[in-house]
Amino acid sequence: MAHLSLEEALSLATGALRKAGANQHMADSTAKALVQAEAQGLSSHGLSRVAQYATHLRNGRADGAAVASISRSKGAALLVDAKHGLAFPACELAVSTAIDTARESGVCFAGVNNSHHCGVLVDHLRAVADAGMVGLGFANSPAAMPAAGGKHAIFGTNPVAAVFPRRNADPLMIDLSLSEVARGKLMIAAKEGKSIPLGWALDQQGNPTTDPNLGLLGSMLPLGAAGSPKGSMLALMVELLVTAVIGAQFGFEASSFFVDEGNVPRLGQAFIVIDPGALTGSDMYYDRMETVIHEMLLDDGVRLSGERRLALERGALKSGLSIPDALMQQLRTLSA
Amino acid sequence: MAHLSLEEALSLATGALRKAGANQHMADSTAKALVQAEAQGLSSHGLSRVAQYATHLRNGRADGAAVASISRSKGAALLVDAKHGLAFPACELAVSTAIDTARESGVCFAGVNNSHHCGVLVDHLRAVADAGMVGLGFANSPAAMPAAGGKHAIFGTNPVAAVFPRRNADPLMIDLSLSEVARGKLMIAAKEGKSIPLGWALDQQGNPTTDPNLGLLGSMLPLGAAGSPKGSMLALMVELLVTAVIGAQFGFEASSFFVDEGNVPRLGQAFIVIDPGALTGSDMYYDRMETVIHEMLLDDGVRLSGERRLALERGALKSGLSIPDALMQQLRTLSA
Repeated sequence: MAHLSLEEALSLATGALRKAGANQHMADSTAKALVQAEAQGLSSHGLSRVAQYATHLRNGRADGAAVASISRSKGAALLVDAKHGLAFPACELAVSTAIDTARESGVCFAGVNNSHHCGVLVDHLRAVADAGMVGLGFANSPAAMPAAGGKHAIFGTNPVAAVFPRRNADPLMIDLSLSEVARGKLMIAAKEGKSIPLGWALDQQGNPTTDPNLGLLGSMLPLGAAGSPKGSMLALMVELLVTAVIGAQFGFEASSFFVDEGNVPRLGQAFIVIDPGALTGSDMYYDRMETVIHEMLLDDGVRLSGERRLALERGALKSGLSIPDALMQQLRTLSA
Repeated sequence: MAHLSLEEALSLATGALRKAGANQHMADSTAKALVQAEAQGLSSHGLSRVAQYATHLRNGRADGAAVASISRSKGAALLVDAKHGLAFPACELAVSTAIDTARESGVCFAGVNNSHHCGVLVDHLRAVADAGMVGLGFANSPAAMPAAGGKHAIFGTNPVAAVFPRRNADPLMIDLSLSEVARGKLMIAAKEGKSIPLGWALDQQGNPTTDPNLGLLGSMLPLGAAGSPKGSMLALMVELLVTAVIGAQFGFEASSFFVDEGNVPRLGQAFIVIDPGALTGSDMYYDRMETVIHEMLLDDGVRLSGERRLALERGALKSGLSIPDALMQQLRTLSA
């Protein structure tokens, strides 16, 4: 493993993205998010994405010259056009504008279209918690899961995120994708020669499978007991919020992020910011938060959502990051 | 089975609620919702609830004299105080005001506090679809599920609902509670002497169980593979949106709806109304809806969300309802 400080990681990631054609703001905003993910132990959304994004910038799947802007705004609803650039500056603009709007209007809906992979969804909402407000986030991704009762992948694993600030404590940070399990669990089972439970995946013909290798060639199943439509309904809800409502492309219209060639994904993100100060009032809000957290912590096994990630991040701020040597070499090459 | 027309059902339900102390508007609004649920084949939220609500009205768990009103409003956010009455007139006021507000502001967040059981959550959003807008709904209920890693019930089964209108077709109607399975599945397994999979329920001590009888005494597990925190995180998100944000009571603070004695539940509902006309524009919205629905229906097994309920409702409009004789007798007695 190679060791590096957060500053070194930022500099390498920014350099690599700049060299691949990202403008300074896009490179800074993206590098900051990827380093933050790495620092939280979320390496699948961390520095390993630098090479992927750089390739997309080089082959036209993302436009490094894009400058996101507000394309439509009415009352407390607005749209940000990411203009086929990387998602991070566009999401930043959407969330910061939504915070200002919610301060005036109590709530704001901000959509981002013509967008790309948005990394760790809940991290976009940190500024909302810092402002003492509640935030919800939704995003789609290239098709990976079928509709309820269906056989072919239509929806992405479509994450849902939320932040709820606390008084003098870290916010609760909720972040989950809507697949029953992550693809990584199939990869581990395949490696160990084990079968997987029904309800995790379908094979290429759309039939339920207990063979992880067939599942990896097929599609992932949404959250919920085998045969239950609940997870698919949630995935459909998220998909429509970030496509039909805001004009982005469906998961089944976007090429995978994991291929170098492919289309401009034009995916969507949406954020809802709610000011408890306009509703129950801030004092009551913070009191109620502590009441439920006290109740949750009565059980020994309970860990608060986001707690582990934030502890790892604090550790990395002090002690830096450890990444595989090959990744370190890749970052050096890309930024040289 | 007894057969009755929708008008007869409405008249019996209204009469029973009036006799138990509900004012005319509360009785009308509640009866309409319960008959609509029964007509959709959702009998657990249908006419069987008349007796429950009547008991709650009689013993003070719900106030039949309550007249819901807007207690707070700022920009595009508002609160409706149900004043310990039945939930239906309060939800109706919240949703109709939210539609008007979203027409001006593009979006509206409307919370309902000091509320009671809200029946079929998605039905509250039908007016939103009729107005050509997208609606989301959230509600909590008496504690039935633990926090992630926890042993005792804190959250309700906390439903999530959404409507997405279509051009010249029924809206998509999404409605699900966040438990892995309904308690009814445990009851059936218990009756048949079968075991249940791990991941459905915990026993009274908070340990995973495959015995449906122990599960019925314990708590239900949230949506998602055994050990996954995903469903708990969604239940927490819903719980906080309708409690901390709007001042309602937590699920663990409310007595079960299925006991006659108990506290005033003071639970919460929240609705978010979004006008696609303010964002991507109505034409593009409706086009995108048909594109994804076409893609979904390429697979034979796919049934659109809400389709079955609405077909049953249309049938009941023509041919009336069939209900158990005992229920018919109960309604006659209560309304006589």
